[in-house]
Amino acid sequence: MGKSIKSEHIPRATIQRLAVYVQVLENFLQEKQNVVSSEGLAKACGVNPSQIRKDLAYFGEFGVRGVGYYVQDLLTAIRQSLGIDRTWNVALVGVGNLGRSLLRYSVFRKRGFIIVGAFDCDPFKIGEVVAGLEVICSRRLSEKVQELGIEIGIITTPAERAQRAANYLTEAGVKGIVNFAPARLSVPSSVAVEYVDFVHHLFSVAFNISYQQSRNR
Amino acid sequence: MGKSIKSEHIPRATIQRLAVYVQVLENFLQEKQNVVSSEGLAKACGVNPSQIRKDLAYFGEFGVRGVGYYVQDLLTAIRQSLGIDRTWNVALVGVGNLGRSLLRYSVFRKRGFIIVGAFDCDPFKIGEVVAGLEVICSRRLSEKVQELGIEIGIITTPAERAQRAANYLTEAGVKGIVNFAPARLSVPSSVAVEYVDFVHHLFSVAFNISYQQSRNR
Repeated sequence: MGKSIKSEHIPRATIQRLAVYVQVLENFLQEKQNVVSSEGLAKACGVNPSQIRKDLAYFGEFGVRGVGYYVQDLLTAIRQSLGIDRTWNVALVGVGNLGRSLLRYSVFRKRGFIIVGAFDCDPFKIGEVVAGLEVICSRRLSEKVQELGIEIGIITTPAERAQRAANYLTEAGVKGIVNFAPARLSVPSSVAVEYVDFVHHLFSVAFNISYQQSRNR
Repeated sequence: MGKSIKSEHIPRATIQRLAVYVQVLENFLQEKQNVVSSEGLAKACGVNPSQIRKDLAYFGEFGVRGVGYYVQDLLTAIRQSLGIDRTWNVALVGVGNLGRSLLRYSVFRKRGFIIVGAFDCDPFKIGEVVAGLEVICSRRLSEKVQELGIEIGIITTPAERAQRAANYLTEAGVKGIVNFAPARLSVPSSVAVEYVDFVHHLFSVAFNISYQQSRNR
């Protein structure tokens, strides 16, 4: 299972930033950049250099004085430490427009997230084939999660059906949920939940526009 | 136009965090919580307290020793400073499954982002009405951006058509773009771009699951 993690407790904010670091480091590798300075990495990740040094210190000693970080070594170490040098089987619950677009989103598979089951409670959708998957009744999640080795659930239902989808998923034994529905979920503390908020991105752009305009006045 | 911003240059990372602060503060208000400690705000935002103090210092003096922050005052000040106490007209380009789900996503309007135009270059989609909007040919963006007072564009095309959509939008004069297509865009530096990356959220959940498992071993 790779190297063990150096520290006992890693803050949630660090874990979230690590996901960004991994993606930025993968981009560097694709562009054949093998070494990156602490400042260069910080800039690409949108955080300050001292934060990156602090975050990476949880996993051991990586920076090389006067050089920076070796991209491949750092990437391998983070991936192994956190056990994400593997693939994950995923269930998607809610085959509406958003669900359909995610079922067809090829980037998930490339990054190791394989959607192996599509679920919906609408009898008109059950049996339909979307992106090669037959839509299954959500009530059968428990049985299918076992059979297909599913560990992560994606919720793309309307807001008012999100909690029920979360209940089906957690009762079936999934360990993590990515919730695209605009609703907070109540789940056992052992289940990792990530909320996707589209408005957040519009806020950021609006901020940037207003800020540029205020500077140009 | 509200109070002016105290500092000349606000880092991009701060601007991004402000979007999170605004949302968290709005949640506090909804839950009738009128005062929040620096630590409480930090925890809810997933950053450390010193970072929040540093970020807010760009906008003036807000914290009250021994009390924390007055939620409404802080929210009003951030919104006014950055000029987001207003609504924004938005164009959506790419009426596929994802585009359709965003056109029907009622949260945008509630938060002040009004999608006033839906665009696609597919002749079979032009003229179709989705969520009350008639789909318009993307080539007419320039004319429609002026007519409808559009400032922000959302791109929900396939990856290979995202750059063309960005070209139409920037030539038409939009000032910011939220790009849902898995492609990097080349736009003038005056245009604010925000990339939406769904995989990011799956990474975070996978990290959390692996990390919990490594601690339980």
